[in-house]
Amino acid sequence: MLLIGEKLNGFIPSVGKAILARDETLLRDLAVRQEEAGADYLDVCAGGDSEAEAESLLWLARLAEDATSLPLCVDSPNPSVLAYVLPQLKREGIVNSVSMESGKIETLFPLIAETGWKVVALLCSNAGVPQSAKGRLDLFEQIFNAAKQYGIAESRLLIDPVVHTLSTDEDALKTFAACAREIRARSASIHVVSGLSNISFGLPARPLVNHAFLVLAMQAGMNAAIMDVLDREMVGLVHATNALLGEDEYCMDYITAFRENRIGPSKHGD
Amino acid sequence: MLLIGEKLNGFIPSVGKAILARDETLLRDLAVRQEEAGADYLDVCAGGDSEAEAESLLWLARLAEDATSLPLCVDSPNPSVLAYVLPQLKREGIVNSVSMESGKIETLFPLIAETGWKVVALLCSNAGVPQSAKGRLDLFEQIFNAAKQYGIAESRLLIDPVVHTLSTDEDALKTFAACAREIRARSASIHVVSGLSNISFGLPARPLVNHAFLVLAMQAGMNAAIMDVLDREMVGLVHATNALLGEDEYCMDYITAFRENRIGPSKHGD
Repeated sequence: MLLIGEKLNGFIPSVGKAILARDETLLRDLAVRQEEAGADYLDVCAGGDSEAEAESLLWLARLAEDATSLPLCVDSPNPSVLAYVLPQLKREGIVNSVSMESGKIETLFPLIAETGWKVVALLCSNAGVPQSAKGRLDLFEQIFNAAKQYGIAESRLLIDPVVHTLSTDEDALKTFAACAREIRARSASIHVVSGLSNISFGLPARPLVNHAFLVLAMQAGMNAAIMDVLDREMVGLVHATNALLGEDEYCMDYITAFRENRIGPSKHGD
Repeated sequence: MLLIGEKLNGFIPSVGKAILARDETLLRDLAVRQEEAGADYLDVCAGGDSEAEAESLLWLARLAEDATSLPLCVDSPNPSVLAYVLPQLKREGIVNSVSMESGKIETLFPLIAETGWKVVALLCSNAGVPQSAKGRLDLFEQIFNAAKQYGIAESRLLIDPVVHTLSTDEDALKTFAACAREIRARSASIHVVSGLSNISFGLPARPLVNHAFLVLAMQAGMNAAIMDVLDREMVGLVHATNALLGEDEYCMDYITAFRENRIGPSKHGD
């Protein structure tokens, strides 16, 4: 299970303000704490669609690379912003994201084809996110084939079937799970990823819904998540679920995570 | 989903001591708090196998009936203790438990046949708990047929497929889930129940494993649990999982539970 820390995101008001002010303290602290919590990657998103996004994202990404030893998940809806930032980074990470929206694959796949960069691919197109699993899986096939044409290995693909909001779509889990199962059955080396907190939008006590969704999505084959790694319960559930699903022999990873104070009641009281 | 509060159990040292001393304060408090937390039934177990068990259990059961408006889940490994206590209670609840161990069904099914009492049936026999789902499902068939002979409706059966300990059986979830799915497919009105905390025995940070197990077991069809209803995260996950599984239209139960302060961060700071 790949854990991608979501906190360095300019859409979070305090983070957006810090990016604008080039105030490093809060951002470095968030980077370091996410690394300590067990993140494998740090998502960096400058937020908004200002003209200055490319410079802001580059600044944020360099700060995160400098503050930790982690690779990044470089996050923008604008493929030319991503194309600007990627070549200037020290470590190869994840590009977030392409989709079947025009301009994305054409801009980014040639850029990463000969590199080790991974890529998040959202199952949407210019027409939006298909309501049905079938519609999303059609887009998966198109992305899968495009990756093959560019020589991008399956193991470098993180497919995001897109999570709808439970409060407005009671099939949100069902559709996501159907996609996840089908994609994982199609390729053992592919990752299914989710920016999962969208599931709880509009509901109270959102972390509860995110927690339950995480467990159910892992059961369906999700093996990467862009999530709040500073939520100890959430990270604990990742490890517990892995063990329950039979992917952690003798619960050794679970026990190690506990010993290293990454799960369970914090030994520092935080 | 039926929630059966597990706290009035003499195997918990402080509770055992209070039962022995006939000290009502702690026990009444546990009863009331479990009712407030949303328990549908209160499990009562005197603990140990002392000669005085029958009197202790009757005393504890009467106290719980008096302190709350809930029916009980009357819990003893000894069928004659259960047969002694049941007829002396005010409200019909759940007998916990029978199994294919000799003497249990023969003692208890005739006693409850003409009543409204429900019954927990463990999938074990004199030979113990079968390792395989197939072995447990064979016992289910025997219990199912025995209930039919005594005229006990399917809706009064709570079948416990038995949860093994994850740290010593990495198939613990898989076996439980296979049984749960099969039993629910066999009858829509039957309940699948679990005393789920056994899953985490021997592991650190046990609530995490219990939480993840709860979600995964519900996905497999478990619709009753003997559990710690004072664990707010656990109760929250019950409601969140119900909504995600499409069993809570417009998330109304989830939102109601939140408004009534049963899930999410407590409004009283406890």
